Amino acid sequence: MSFKRRGLYAAFAGLCLLAVLAGPLPAAQPLAETFTLANGLQVVVIPDHRAPVVTHMVWYRVGSADEPQGKSGIAHFLEHLMFKGTNKYPPGAFSRIIRQNGGEENAFTTKDYTAFFQRIAKDRLGLVMDLEADRMQNLVLKDENVLPELKVVEEERRERTDNDPASLLGEQIDAMLYLAHPYHKPVIGWMAEINKLTRQDAIAFYKAHYTPANAVLIVAGDVTLDEVKKLAEEHYGKLTNTFDVATRTRTEEPEPLAPRRVTLTDARAASPVIQRTYLTVSYATAQKGEAEALDVLAELLGGGATSRLYRKLVVEKRLASSAGAWYSGDGLDSGTFGVYAALEEIKANGITADELARTKVTLIAETVYARDNQGNLARNFGSSLATGTTVKDVLEWPDRVEAVKLEDVKAAAAKTLDIRRSVTGILLPAPGVPAGGGEPVVPTPSNSPQQ
Amino acid sequence: MSFKRRGLYAAFAGLCLLAVLAGPLPAAQPLAETFTLANGLQVVVIPDHRAPVVTHMVWYRVGSADEPQGKSGIAHFLEHLMFKGTNKYPPGAFSRIIRQNGGEENAFTTKDYTAFFQRIAKDRLGLVMDLEADRMQNLVLKDENVLPELKVVEEERRERTDNDPASLLGEQIDAMLYLAHPYHKPVIGWMAEINKLTRQDAIAFYKAHYTPANAVLIVAGDVTLDEVKKLAEEHYGKLTNTFDVATRTRTEEPEPLAPRRVTLTDARAASPVIQRTYLTVSYATAQKGEAEALDVLAELLGGGATSRLYRKLVVEKRLASSAGAWYSGDGLDSGTFGVYAALEEIKANGITADELARTKVTLIAETVYARDNQGNLARNFGSSLATGTTVKDVLEWPDRVEAVKLEDVKAAAAKTLDIRRSVTGILLPAPGVPAGGGEPVVPTPSNSPQQ
Repeated sequence: MSFKRRGLYAAFAGLCLLAVLAGPLPAAQPLAETFTLANGLQVVVIPDHRAPVVTHMVWYRVGSADEPQGKSGIAHFLEHLMFKGTNKYPPGAFSRIIRQNGGEENAFTTKDYTAFFQRIAKDRLGLVMDLEADRMQNLVLKDENVLPELKVVEEERRERTDNDPASLLGEQIDAMLYLAHPYHKPVIGWMAEINKLTRQDAIAFYKAHYTPANAVLIVAGDVTLDEVKKLAEEHYGKLTNTFDVATRTRTEEPEPLAPRRVTLTDARAASPVIQRTYLTVSYATAQKGEAEALDVLAELLGGGATSRLYRKLVVEKRLASSAGAWYSGDGLDSGTFGVYAALEEIKANGITADELARTKVTLIAETVYARDNQGNLARNFGSSLATGTTVKDVLEWPDRVEAVKLEDVKAAAAKTLDIRRSVTGILLPAPGVPAGGGEPVVPTPSNSPQQ
Repeated sequence: MSFKRRGLYAAFAGLCLLAVLAGPLPAAQPLAETFTLANGLQVVVIPDHRAPVVTHMVWYRVGSADEPQGKSGIAHFLEHLMFKGTNKYPPGAFSRIIRQNGGEENAFTTKDYTAFFQRIAKDRLGLVMDLEADRMQNLVLKDENVLPELKVVEEERRERTDNDPASLLGEQIDAMLYLAHPYHKPVIGWMAEINKLTRQDAIAFYKAHYTPANAVLIVAGDVTLDEVKKLAEEHYGKLTNTFDVATRTRTEEPEPLAPRRVTLTDARAASPVIQRTYLTVSYATAQKGEAEALDVLAELLGGGATSRLYRKLVVEKRLASSAGAWYSGDGLDSGTFGVYAALEEIKANGITADELARTKVTLIAETVYARDNQGNLARNFGSSLATGTTVKDVLEWPDRVEAVKLEDVKAAAAKTLDIRRSVTGILLPAPGVPAGGGEPVVPTPSNSPQQ
């Protein structure tokens, strides 16, 4: 998933805005429409008739930040266990049926949400709904399939985190950036807690969070609103909420007081990397226009080969082989702004009106040429709705970026780029290992998903 | 409570060892004896007939590290609420009765335990037991006295933490030293979580942890084993355990990988302070002799005016107005070793046999002259028994210190003083505030109690 997740909305909203329509999408038709079933399941339909396929996604408003004390990793572990079958579709059936019908599927968990998706021929949409609605309520877990899956997750942690210095550093940075808020914990979980997860833990978590009123259904593709309405009513409409959704009680992070730093020396690191992550607002918590200004700032600072950081550090000074910036704004409770390589300049020098204008055009226009797809679009609506923003917010994003003024970016920079709000992470190859010998490690923003 | 909490045992054990008896304590009588009631309440009796008073303490094996997610501060809050009365002794009665009988009382909470104590004339021991046994099971909480007490705790946090730069820095250091383990959290709690604590939270915590099988009773003073046995049976023996004690599930802290640093600039700081805290073993988790070697190392390095750090930094180089070291070894799951001012030298130079011999003599002998009291002794037994060590361990401590060899100290130093296991905390007065203008701030080890 791209660092500039919000930017992806522009891929489609931008299509309308700039009237550069690549496909037969009628201009009068809204990009997306939404309705809610009687049981509380919110549904978003994104018609896209360029190919006879659909992307079907169910998003649960639960992620690793909702886990109980000592149970880190349970949200992600349950995501794995959702493939372990029901009475109607025994273990293995779900994936086999999707495959036999020519579909693809996957799932992922972040700090804020857990999502399951399939891409399949349009006439199989009802089948997929039947499968997904079934496991929303009827999951059957047995030790015989839970316990081996725990080994799979442990191995996943070893591979993707423990054997990857950049991931390890990212984990340390998150743990230091959030002192009280549960974004502190890695999505995959701490190994010592993963080890101890049980079938009972998974069932308790499932019964606290997996229910229609806590989910969002996104259908993108060669369908109409009416078709989705009918099918959603048929398959999901019959589900009832058999328990009250657990409240998302997250501790407010105390105001950051002091710059923090962590230096990881690891023989497996290919070359030195420095990154700094600031705790800031997210789209869900920002004042009007603030998050958009941070999107503009990230693009301006480190969005590509014409960005400030890249020009300065890679092209002019040849100090780095890459440099960049990101804004991760889709957190329910807060966002992060990050740079890798160096920073300081921006606050001191301010930015120019020219840079701002160019950046806004880039942010919107680049998306027209960008390779994009139904899945990305569905994913973007899902992550927004699962983290407190609305379909309208997503649709209006390009207008709001267009409205960002020079003062907005300066104010956002002044507020966000305060070193007391930051953790600086430094990754060094082990002493004796020549630096710069390999590809630089690109840091991962804290809200990136765990598959 | 002193940094060298273990050292205090020597105050009394040392009395026997060196045969320098200050009082009429018969040499044949053991320092302390222990027995357990049928309901699981462990009792320790420490006869001390120098004055006709007793120190009565009840220790619960529960502290802030046992709190549920999002409820930081509940262990300490409940400690406050334990004074809110029962049906037998209405609100205010407990403290009034103690006072009217010439007694003193207090209570405190740490990451691992919660303790209540009274010091009173020996003939009131039964009365105190009656009061303390009553509130072990019959606490009555009402919103009318719970809610105002929450304001008291909030104010306590403001005063002792938020308005004290050294405490704030200590809180940040703990949060960075423990990434996964719940020692991460401050005992007082995060303000945003304290704010939301409720009567229901307190009752749930009380019902999960306050029961005879989860408590230790310590009686020190002018009593005999038989007298305490009779009274304890009468007052505590009638209590039954009406629920199973909640398991102390603590996440194992991952092996520390990278040195961390936090720099707090605060106008209220009187002078710059640097401290470094290493994550290490505690008495409860150490291999044989390891914790004793760390006690010796802390004494040798920073135990007083003849210690290495003090001589070097205060006397010779005049770089600091104070310097020291501590070993905090009474954690259930881990300990910390800390220095304030500077370090490095020890690992490089090693220590000499002379220094070791002198330090061991000091550690044991200084206690003979030390002012000490019944309360401290009772407290030391309590903290030991609440964190996984035994009466025998406490009694044999001087012998084990005596047995520490040069290699033990060198091995403990090499293992513990690894910068990857450390957090360095730096406290700076605000720019413009002249440094060194006031008393240096003495850092607090992480397991110090919250009253």
